[in-house]
Amino acid sequence: KNYDPSKFYRPSTSVDTVIFTVFDLALQVLLVKRGEYPFKNQWTLVGGFIDLENDQTLEDTAKRKLEEKTGVKTPYLEQCFTIGNKIRDPRGWSVTTVYFALLPSENIQLKTNSDDITSSSVSAVKWSPIKNNKIKESLAFDHNYILEKAIERLRNKVLYTSLPAYLMPEKFTLRDLQTVYEIILDRTLESKSFRRRIERANILEPTGETRQDVKRPAQLYRLKENIDTYFFLRNIEGAT
Amino acid sequence: KNYDPSKFYRPSTSVDTVIFTVFDLALQVLLVKRGEYPFKNQWTLVGGFIDLENDQTLEDTAKRKLEEKTGVKTPYLEQCFTIGNKIRDPRGWSVTTVYFALLPSENIQLKTNSDDITSSSVSAVKWSPIKNNKIKESLAFDHNYILEKAIERLRNKVLYTSLPAYLMPEKFTLRDLQTVYEIILDRTLESKSFRRRIERANILEPTGETRQDVKRPAQLYRLKENIDTYFFLRNIEGAT
Repeated sequence: KNYDPSKFYRPSTSVDTVIFTVFDLALQVLLVKRGEYPFKNQWTLVGGFIDLENDQTLEDTAKRKLEEKTGVKTPYLEQCFTIGNKIRDPRGWSVTTVYFALLPSENIQLKTNSDDITSSSVSAVKWSPIKNNKIKESLAFDHNYILEKAIERLRNKVLYTSLPAYLMPEKFTLRDLQTVYEIILDRTLESKSFRRRIERANILEPTGETRQDVKRPAQLYRLKENIDTYFFLRNIEGAT
Repeated sequence: KNYDPSKFYRPSTSVDTVIFTVFDLALQVLLVKRGEYPFKNQWTLVGGFIDLENDQTLEDTAKRKLEEKTGVKTPYLEQCFTIGNKIRDPRGWSVTTVYFALLPSENIQLKTNSDDITSSSVSAVKWSPIKNNKIKESLAFDHNYILEKAIERLRNKVLYTSLPAYLMPEKFTLRDLQTVYEIILDRTLESKSFRRRIERANILEPTGETRQDVKRPAQLYRLKENIDTYFFLRNIEGAT
């Protein structure tokens, strides 16, 4: 019994990326409008099939699709989970590996063009604001479920890491960073203990410049060169 | 341009499960010996391709393979990560979703027979003890790497959850449970604070029976009926 895997009908295998940024005081997710069936003209997350010639790894697929739609080359990218079953795609058994990406909102150029033959054409691209862990659009496939899981993962990780730093522009004040934490956690934080926490993480360096803030000029910081994500021993205060 | 995914050569998609148990004072992982090329006669983790007719989800594939080899129906099963690339399988681009499972060692009947046409034949099955996060066998494919990642995930999660409870026999003493924690964390724990921590989790109930222990009869406990994994707010003491 010589077993040859290709003899067996294989599930389709894709990568879907939940692309987050922050602007207008809200966490935003990038959506694309499908140009083909199934779910023609319906919004979905950014994703596509694996290009077996050019993609060396699953991460390559995620990065390629993300760069194609946003022009961004090296976002923060993390694998979230994989979902595979008989019913999520009307075309048959399908497996998708989900990533989430964090992008500073300042250097993104949205594009719909896609010379990527492995994924269906896209007729529009837009950001959608997240309110109470949800967006208003009803997405194709199981993408609303996927989005909710990714938001849950992000919010959980923000409790004990420096992840929001990847959403910041090149220069920012501690107040700006605290605001992004508060947007993601959906509640206000006590400023003094927030500052102590960030200082202890030792991931920022002053730029020497300041910006006029509400009360007085505020120091502008930047993320230190190729710094890794910082893991705090304890969740941020006030977290249940 | 009507895009039909099946026109594209698809990667092979499999599920691999790192099956853990504890006996002889060591964490053990289940290995099977491949009966076919590639890697004929080499040990691997338990895994196989998705049976598109009978498996409804990826979890079904993992459970089917695990039951086939151990006779165990409902182990603790958790998705760990997915790895996909061009080089991990000599037959071509391949994606595998990795699970880890926790089994009490008392009710396992190892079997090699496999009427599962979707995976290659297996000539032997055995447990291998884990020492310093490694086993002595050099496994097929990237399975040593996968095993190390799964051990890392398990050890990390044991710091803040009640996961070891799923490795216990039906009745056990608090001393037995502490020993399993110590085996996985590879260090001794302070008994009094361990007992306080487990009592606070409120996941055990006394069976009313005792067992003669070193000093005096020790109370035998069991896991409460369909109790969920308990998440502690703080890592176990002494953990860096």
